[in-house]
Amino acid sequence: MEFLPALDLLSTLVFALVGARIAADKGLDYGGIAFIAAVASLSGGTLRNLFLGLTPIWIVDPWIIISVLSAVLITLVFRRVTRIGKTLLVMDTLGLAVATISGSHLAFEENVSWWAAIILGLITAVTGGLLRDVLCQVEPVLLHRETIGTSSLMGAITFVALHQLEVSQTISAIAGAAIVVITRIVSIYFDLHLPKFNKQTNA
Amino acid sequence: MEFLPALDLLSTLVFALVGARIAADKGLDYGGIAFIAAVASLSGGTLRNLFLGLTPIWIVDPWIIISVLSAVLITLVFRRVTRIGKTLLVMDTLGLAVATISGSHLAFEENVSWWAAIILGLITAVTGGLLRDVLCQVEPVLLHRETIGTSSLMGAITFVALHQLEVSQTISAIAGAAIVVITRIVSIYFDLHLPKFNKQTNA
Amino acid sequence: MEFLPALDLLSTLVFALVGARIAADKGLDYGGIAFIAAVASLSGGTLRNLFLGLTPIWIVDPWIIISVLSAVLITLVFRRVTRIGKTLLVMDTLGLAVATISGSHLAFEENVSWWAAIILGLITAVTGGLLRDVLCQVEPVLLHRETIGTSSLMGAITFVALHQLEVSQTISAIAGAAIVVITRIVSIYFDLHLPKFNKQTNA
Repeated sequence: MEFLPALDLLSTLVFALVGARIAADKGLDYGGIAFIAAVASLSGGTLRNLFLGLTPIWIVDPWIIISVLSAVLITLVFRRVTRIGKTLLVMDTLGLAVATISGSHLAFEENVSWWAAIILGLITAVTGGLLRDVLCQVEPVLLHRETIGTSSLMGAITFVALHQLEVSQTISAIAGAAIVVITRIVSIYFDLHLPKFNKQTNA
Repeated sequence: MEFLPALDLLSTLVFALVGARIAADKGLDYGGIAFIAAVASLSGGTLRNLFLGLTPIWIVDPWIIISVLSAVLITLVFRRVTRIGKTLLVMDTLGLAVATISGSHLAFEENVSWWAAIILGLITAVTGGLLRDVLCQVEPVLLHRETIGTSSLMGAITFVALHQLEVSQTISAIAGAAIVVITRIVSIYFDLHLPKFNKQTNA
Repeated sequence: MEFLPALDLLSTLVFALVGARIAADKGLDYGGIAFIAAVASLSGGTLRNLFLGLTPIWIVDPWIIISVLSAVLITLVFRRVTRIGKTLLVMDTLGLAVATISGSHLAFEENVSWWAAIILGLITAVTGGLLRDVLCQVEPVLLHRETIGTSSLMGAITFVALHQLEVSQTISAIAGAAIVVITRIVSIYFDLHLPKFNKQTNA
């Protein structure tokens, strides 16, 4: 199996699992769960492809659809398993790392500039979760607990920098993905956040 | 008049009528009503065309715009007519049937796979209503009363299956549209819903 | 510098400044502020380009990215400056005028019809603010205080009409932009709004 389709398949599966669970917790029915799982897992890659002038991957690759359906099925079968907060977080972080690299990687394949490769990595990784939260009418995690965006950005910058330095694709991808995972784990473990405006001094 | 433009025109008109009414009921002014009517009626077909690499239909076909403007005008002229809940539901169901078939049909014209034809039918039919609800800040009907998604999906599967069996286009389209309407009527009449997670057993 | 890139750069800067400030006021952290600034300033032009079958401008033009980053930096540096409501309004109106003309202008360069040029001017101008409000979970200004949509529409119609009458591009652009600014100032100064449905007579 090739590099990019494998990455897309993996990130689709984990993002669909996370999306389906969040939709289920919000009380959506099976149809709503499947819809949110699809949006959460497919919209990042779809937007990336539209921006690059390519056909969305789910139009040409049936495995992507099977991946989403599997995630929905898994969610329904294991619906009585609770306390999966940590598992979800691990899967979400994995999806973030994989989607970031897949986005930046495809950007380079289409010969766009390095800054667009960074942004496309970020868009591929964060769009699904953002739309998922907006549609489920919860406060978007991306905008309020920013380790997601920061982690993805750090990983995209790492991958793109190594690529520009002509490091091999495999090493660049592993390093970029590792930086996503490490940034997220460190920021969660030490409860690090980006600063906000200080309302007191602002008044 | 050709097959596909006629379908798009009809679904645009009814989706715009439903959208304009919902926006008016939410207290938006005339500009907001026109905007929601346009988003509700045009976004499904626009997304379908972007995914297929085609120009959005409202860029090339002036009748689509006239159709939206007519719907807004009708809504403003008959603004004192209340108790139109049932009429709205009939129109919404009609739009759903027509948009589903138009989406799947155009997908086949562009030679995409059968699974993409099903998904594109569904996207064409449900996107407008979803964005309408998000912009009007009401709970999306699509995600919480799922007869919309299920009806459209059943119709798209029917149309695509008959098309694959090489049944004539007209018969496939009529059968697919009929399945959308029947599924929706039956599910509303008998108050059928897709199941949700059982919170009790989940606790 | 050419005409269109200069317009896009200017509207990007002011929309990013307005977006960053609104995100900061909503309590988002620095990452969220940057994200909202980017969405507010780039999504209108991006949608315009996708509808016209073109690559989004930020993929090819690094100055657009620098423009967004500058706006975020300015917002963070001057974060203690309060009472900027009027300045924001002036910038937002300027961005609206410039984006409207840039949208309609690019539409003509791509040889689309006059009605599509009007709509694309409107979409370029209002999309960013609409998404900004939806993501910040505030009531969309566009839909509830409609001077934005009306102003942009008036300007787009003016620009397109003069263009069709073969008036020079510079004069058409200045007149169209002026109409956007004047319509907005007049409507705010005299507290003019588009009418809503009269709930009393409707009951």
